Amino acid sequence: MKRSGRLVAMTNFFLENPRVHKNLPSFTEKYHAAKASISEDLDIIDQLFQEEGLGYLKRTAGSAGGVMYIPESAYEKSVRFVDQLCERLKDPNRILPGGYLYMSDILGEPHTVREIGRIFASKFSDMDIDVVVTVATKGIPLAYAVASFLNVPVVIVRRDPKVTEGSSVSINYVSGSSKKIQTMVLPKRSLAEGSNVCIIDDFMKAGGTVNGMVSLLKEFDANVKAIGVLAEADDEEEDRIVDTYTSLVKITNVDLKENIISVQHGNFNKTIR
Amino acid sequence: MKRSGRLVAMTNFFLENPRVHKNLPSFTEKYHAAKASISEDLDIIDQLFQEEGLGYLKRTAGSAGGVMYIPESAYEKSVRFVDQLCERLKDPNRILPGGYLYMSDILGEPHTVREIGRIFASKFSDMDIDVVVTVATKGIPLAYAVASFLNVPVVIVRRDPKVTEGSSVSINYVSGSSKKIQTMVLPKRSLAEGSNVCIIDDFMKAGGTVNGMVSLLKEFDANVKAIGVLAEADDEEEDRIVDTYTSLVKITNVDLKENIISVQHGNFNKTIR
Repeated sequence: MKRSGRLVAMTNFFLENPRVHKNLPSFTEKYHAAKASISEDLDIIDQLFQEEGLGYLKRTAGSAGGVMYIPESAYEKSVRFVDQLCERLKDPNRILPGGYLYMSDILGEPHTVREIGRIFASKFSDMDIDVVVTVATKGIPLAYAVASFLNVPVVIVRRDPKVTEGSSVSINYVSGSSKKIQTMVLPKRSLAEGSNVCIIDDFMKAGGTVNGMVSLLKEFDANVKAIGVLAEADDEEEDRIVDTYTSLVKITNVDLKENIISVQHGNFNKTIR
Repeated sequence: MKRSGRLVAMTNFFLENPRVHKNLPSFTEKYHAAKASISEDLDIIDQLFQEEGLGYLKRTAGSAGGVMYIPESAYEKSVRFVDQLCERLKDPNRILPGGYLYMSDILGEPHTVREIGRIFASKFSDMDIDVVVTVATKGIPLAYAVASFLNVPVVIVRRDPKVTEGSSVSINYVSGSSKKIQTMVLPKRSLAEGSNVCIIDDFMKAGGTVNGMVSLLKEFDANVKAIGVLAEADDEEEDRIVDTYTSLVKITNVDLKENIISVQHGNFNKTIR
């Protein structure tokens, strides 16, 4: 195969298979090309990925050597994306009774969800995550987006047990804002003991839900390595139960009288608190 | 930019932006290349995409001319993928009390979910779909996968109304298998009237849930253009309420005594019934 065709094929392979280790002979065999040619191809792809802010190719030398695509979202790209997100969230039509914000349209856009996932995955890239955990319902698409870039599975915590999931572990927890007792359930066979976990959710106020997930994950001896929430709400009345997390946007105020929503960047561009 | 770099950049653009129309001048400007060179690039990418069974580039001539990537899953690739899926589903460890099958592990794999989405999107490619609709919870990742290839948003029907979604339309329906009365809710502002809809779900037995969605969508004057379910269960005792759908696998029998699960291809490789 000619270089031009190889570049297209290999670019597709890397984008579809992030964090999959591939040794060079598998490429030389597949494309009937010399090792030096493949190596040059990889240089070209690596350079372009870096220029476009898509991540980089991680090469390892030696007999077990090879290459792996590590997806990342370049800093400026992430900031620009979150800027746009903030603008969209400021639309006063989003205000719902009770001071809640309508976000389902944004969470319904596969492309937007994917970019959110790319930013979190980029942030959690070095944390050796084994599995992404979320709670039904709205965090699910975000969790899959993050997981697709980290090349790990998703496990979904439910609020109600389902017969199609077999025996499960459940906990009761107190919701942060409503102070109500709620239940969370995770099927026993869904998570291996001692897994490195990243928790993803769409929204965090006092942090009761995330905290509930942390408690439930303790039952599986999981290590919660990272917590990512799309939006956090500034809640001055409450002490937040969760203190180490990454957020993309922060809703600082919803003024029902003046119809103004105040949104700013979350802590994603700072060091993790 | 040299051809080699352009090919990597453009391949990435098409894969990340399926069904987005792009005119040629935008490429010639971005890459400072002649129209003839860009046109050759497109030929190379198109040929490779077709060879790898990833779809094709749709070119339109004239002043409003340009190019759009239409993702598809080649027939042999789809068949091979569903073969593997059937093999995995036959594992007797999947049998749960009541004759249900554990599928959460498979549905938790972003790569597998993406391939399922590619097959459905390929099948529904010409149907002018505006939006993918699913019901919480297990169909959600599949719906996003399909939607990402069709470049349309996802709308999620819930079984319980949520305060964060505003006013909503709800219906009651009778579940096909348990004959229980259940509720489905869709926020009013989530779906424009007259939309062309594709329904996606993970599992269908008698079809009560899908049928409930069809009824709910009628309230929005939606046109249900296509229905896709990952797995259908052969249910001889019941008349299926839904008769036009596409399934990837068909679970024909779960023998609790002998611990045998019989799985075969669904109707995806036949004309839609």
